[in-house]
Amino acid sequence: MDFNGIANSFTQHYYATFDGGIATRNNLAGLYRPESMLTWEGKQVPGQSGIIETINKPELAVVKHQIASSDAQPAPGGGVLVLVTGNLAVDNAFDKPMQFTETFNLQPIPGQPGGFFIYNQVFRLVFA
Amino acid sequence: MDFNGIANSFTQHYYATFDGGIATRNNLAGLYRPESMLTWEGKQVPGQSGIIETINKPELAVVKHQIASSDAQPAPGGGVLVLVTGNLAVDNAFDKPMQFTETFNLQPIPGQPGGFFIYNQVFRLVFA
Repeated sequence: MDFNGIANSFTQHYYATFDGGIATRNNLAGLYRPESMLTWEGKQVPGQSGIIETINKPELAVVKHQIASSDAQPAPGGGVLVLVTGNLAVDNAFDKPMQFTETFNLQPIPGQPGGFFIYNQVFRLVFA
Repeated sequence: MDFNGIANSFTQHYYATFDGGIATRNNLAGLYRPESMLTWEGKQVPGQSGIIETINKPELAVVKHQIASSDAQPAPGGGVLVLVTGNLAVDNAFDKPMQFTETFNLQPIPGQPGGFFIYNQVFRLVFA
């Protein structure tokens, strides 16, 4: 399994779609299933609809992710684990980006060979 | 499954043992198996012996981890996914800690109920 290729395609797609704002962000819904979990700054959000609601909250309306590192490994269940670090610029503070880290555990979509969905996702800002 | 309790016990034990230096760090070997994987600052290291060698390298002889956040989720395979952020102070620069992020995918040890080993581990320093 080309876990590096899968991870790179995923992260490029995920952050480009996220950063497209409300025009594109709802398209991320297809990456989640009922068993998906997001932990956003310590808040646990289960399931597709709650996750999409969380990443669509007003204070995240205009953001830009810049990836500094992305490391992938094969994970149990035929999955791919990814750890991303980078800058996150929010709204009118594009000159003062924050640092973030985010991990994803991508798992195969049942009955859809080559397809992956987000099973685990944890996001944290990193402060010096 | 009390995934939060498992994750908290694990991270406390892991970093205390790591920070104990060469006197205790080899005790971490029991947390790894041949199928374990570590990615350390982008370098992929498979298997128990290579991982112990990597975390025992001279420039890491005296370090101190301080956990800022630790988020856990249940993971496929009966596992626990953890994302940690915190400060890492190295050697003689204890007044200038760096920021780090580390993710672990703990998986059940076959034939040892309640026991977990580190399947996936990815470590990255985070720079502003």
